[in-house]
Amino acid sequence: MTAIDLNSDLGESYGAWSMGDDTAMLAIVSSANVACGFHAGDPAGIWKTVKAAAEKGVSIGAHVSYPDRVGFGRRDMDVTSSELIADVIYQIGALKGIAAAAGVSVGYVKPHGALYNRIANDAKQGQAVIDGIKAIDRSLTLMGLANAPILELARKSGLNVVAEAFADRAYTPDGQLVSRREAGAVLHDAQLIAKRMLQLAHDGTLEAIDGSTIKIDAQSICVHGDSPGAVAIAQEIRRAFEADGITIRSFLSA
Amino acid sequence: MTAIDLNSDLGESYGAWSMGDDTAMLAIVSSANVACGFHAGDPAGIWKTVKAAAEKGVSIGAHVSYPDRVGFGRRDMDVTSSELIADVIYQIGALKGIAAAAGVSVGYVKPHGALYNRIANDAKQGQAVIDGIKAIDRSLTLMGLANAPILELARKSGLNVVAEAFADRAYTPDGQLVSRREAGAVLHDAQLIAKRMLQLAHDGTLEAIDGSTIKIDAQSICVHGDSPGAVAIAQEIRRAFEADGITIRSFLSA
Amino acid sequence: MTAIDLNSDLGESYGAWSMGDDTAMLAIVSSANVACGFHAGDPAGIWKTVKAAAEKGVSIGAHVSYPDRVGFGRRDMDVTSSELIADVIYQIGALKGIAAAAGVSVGYVKPHGALYNRIANDAKQGQAVIDGIKAIDRSLTLMGLANAPILELARKSGLNVVAEAFADRAYTPDGQLVSRREAGAVLHDAQLIAKRMLQLAHDGTLEAIDGSTIKIDAQSICVHGDSPGAVAIAQEIRRAFEADGITIRSFLSA
Amino acid sequence: MTAIDLNSDLGESYGAWSMGDDTAMLAIVSSANVACGFHAGDPAGIWKTVKAAAEKGVSIGAHVSYPDRVGFGRRDMDVTSSELIADVIYQIGALKGIAAAAGVSVGYVKPHGALYNRIANDAKQGQAVIDGIKAIDRSLTLMGLANAPILELARKSGLNVVAEAFADRAYTPDGQLVSRREAGAVLHDAQLIAKRMLQLAHDGTLEAIDGSTIKIDAQSICVHGDSPGAVAIAQEIRRAFEADGITIRSFLSA
Repeated sequence: MTAIDLNSDLGESYGAWSMGDDTAMLAIVSSANVACGFHAGDPAGIWKTVKAAAEKGVSIGAHVSYPDRVGFGRRDMDVTSSELIADVIYQIGALKGIAAAAGVSVGYVKPHGALYNRIANDAKQGQAVIDGIKAIDRSLTLMGLANAPILELARKSGLNVVAEAFADRAYTPDGQLVSRREAGAVLHDAQLIAKRMLQLAHDGTLEAIDGSTIKIDAQSICVHGDSPGAVAIAQEIRRAFEADGITIRSFLSA
Repeated sequence: MTAIDLNSDLGESYGAWSMGDDTAMLAIVSSANVACGFHAGDPAGIWKTVKAAAEKGVSIGAHVSYPDRVGFGRRDMDVTSSELIADVIYQIGALKGIAAAAGVSVGYVKPHGALYNRIANDAKQGQAVIDGIKAIDRSLTLMGLANAPILELARKSGLNVVAEAFADRAYTPDGQLVSRREAGAVLHDAQLIAKRMLQLAHDGTLEAIDGSTIKIDAQSICVHGDSPGAVAIAQEIRRAFEADGITIRSFLSA
Repeated sequence: MTAIDLNSDLGESYGAWSMGDDTAMLAIVSSANVACGFHAGDPAGIWKTVKAAAEKGVSIGAHVSYPDRVGFGRRDMDVTSSELIADVIYQIGALKGIAAAAGVSVGYVKPHGALYNRIANDAKQGQAVIDGIKAIDRSLTLMGLANAPILELARKSGLNVVAEAFADRAYTPDGQLVSRREAGAVLHDAQLIAKRMLQLAHDGTLEAIDGSTIKIDAQSICVHGDSPGAVAIAQEIRRAFEADGITIRSFLSA
Repeated sequence: MTAIDLNSDLGESYGAWSMGDDTAMLAIVSSANVACGFHAGDPAGIWKTVKAAAEKGVSIGAHVSYPDRVGFGRRDMDVTSSELIADVIYQIGALKGIAAAAGVSVGYVKPHGALYNRIANDAKQGQAVIDGIKAIDRSLTLMGLANAPILELARKSGLNVVAEAFADRAYTPDGQLVSRREAGAVLHDAQLIAKRMLQLAHDGTLEAIDGSTIKIDAQSICVHGDSPGAVAIAQEIRRAFEADGITIRSFLSA
């Protein structure tokens, strides 16, 4: 592999409240998961982020969420399929509108937070997200967790999918994310992380938390920008890739 | 004139709360001003209304609003132009997404409530609404109050416009709506209203509150469905038009 | 037993949207579970309901909910304990403020919808609700589902509790509510329901869905007012109680 | 004068979003204007701020706002009096509930943002705020802009009032705030600001923007904590007051 995608969650400010450093991250990533207003993002702020991404040539994805702003979309919700389908359509539509105003397109959908985790394994909510995406635009790609059942479910439903790995997370020997509640779940050493991501890009493997080698088939790597430390890690990953001759390029730009 | 448009505000339920009788009104009108979520309308409810309108061949308009759900968009707000432009784009985009999922298109934009009244005469907020519409889709028509400056402002900005009259409202001798705070502002007699609308459709005139005859150049008539009485008035208008050989047809279907 | 409490969910309108017939229900019940703004109820509407309840001498309870207005508090949410404790305090406080403005007090707390169902058996969220109530006012009573573990949990935590039965619901042989997904879960025959409630008031028993007799120790009966049919059932229960010499009286008015 | 109050807007984070440095400001001020959820503040965050203020012995005020979270309460809204009265009661009640849970009381009310500016001179909305405060608790003090008509209106209505000056704002020769749209409206020099506040505390006067001396009868000074620079200014004011022997003490602690 000589090219890989870097994605990050952006546009997560809300009104007077700031979150993350979109400017810094847009200089690093090739794909921007842009909040659509349900967990974060007000229209003026979303538009600002989309315009900045457009200027940088960064691909735009819809970062759709449960309707839970005060909980930042991080709390599991038992929504019905018809509610979820419509919520997905509404959010993608809103972001498509803003993208159109910025002269660009929405290329993919990455569910956010609790919805992301839920659909990784929950076929009912997963199918609702897929149905919502297909209802508004069958050409959209679904970004999901590498090794999770949602990817196959989406593929069978006729959607393009892209699998992502998390740069700063440890993996279990069977290729799952180590739960955040467990020690060692989140990695902080920028150089170590960059080295792991190089291995992932070259070999499609990672060292699991028990030292074994696991296969992770990922076309995109998620990096964070919600703290100065997170931005620094993302920068180090980019630097390491460039030094190694790996192109950072959106999976959409083939 | 042998054809006219009838429009009504639809999709104004919200979650568990119902408002209006969308089914009844979709059998009467040719254009549906569909709530976009800011004053009313949740995604699942909006989608239901859009699907029903699509089945009836009723044109879809974006009923954009200030972000004020608890006030139902009826309270004037001093939003900035950049906020308003983005809010308009977001709402139209969301409705376009739902319309796409229903296999139809959004054809026009009709601002709601306090925003509608404000932009009728306020060039700053009016221009922001116009700029928002143009940013997302220049082919959209703006529906506005007959005789109000917003129509000329939009026309000069390159938008198609359509002027509307209100079936159940009295007019001043200079062609403005009589304020709701004044006696006689709202008409309740279905037959009288239907007779007035026939005159409007044929001659482009109405009798003002002082008995004088005024010119109202309107291509659409707004009817309401928020009470059984309102639905009955709308039905009587449609009946009178059909009996008189006037076609009820969306201004978009020429 | 010669006295029993009737309670109902009130104040569930929101802004321009109406729900239920508070006026009719306040003539029937002795306790009003008043929405606190998280699933329903805007401040002006809540105040109107509280004033009307105060005039009728109906006891006021805080009908606290998950923060989910679009879902009407009917969707299970994985909130943290610290979020839930604070949400409970905030809602009770807001209602206490409005009650103070109406010259009355909040006497009890009845969680709403998904939160009600969740805490019936979930000790973690149940304890958070209990802790929130105790933090703001230890003299408040918690109303909960008869036979559910939450009642004992609250009692052990030092709260007064009152158990309620549902007039229009079928029960399993072991004293649980029949799930709404199953046939026969909801009863519609006003006379049958009234007869069952008489038996409950006199003997503390009900006929379960399999014909067996179960023990239901309830000091309050929940009746609904969200449709004309529901109001009629509530009226029939009241009529039957009065004809039988049973006093309808809040559990707080001893 | 040997004592003065310093107040600041606190508790303005929301869910995952932070705003301001409450910890730093609680070491500086004697009164905390705590957000009540309408422009900022989620229940868990409000409670955290109230507990921290309680530990520091800082007085708690209700920072009530228009219901406009996305606009941070900074946009003028044409709310009706009955809406505004109920909104004020609800917010104060919610904060009173959280204060009770923290073992302290709410002592005063300071409207926020656009509502603060509006009622300074608008008697209709001003009276609604006063009526809301009196409805829930007549012992609450209203904090308002020095020299503004709202203070006399509240006094005549039987409320205790306290007038505040703004540390970092320039004043017109007739004692009004210079509009933020004009050059020189906001002061940035910490030492100059501290010197001006010393003069205010000693003489009840300030130098207006034209160099003239104006009378400002203020018992409280508003300082900001929304940026590191703002915190530094507030610290310098406190340092200057302490060096000069002026006690910083809430107007409520007499």
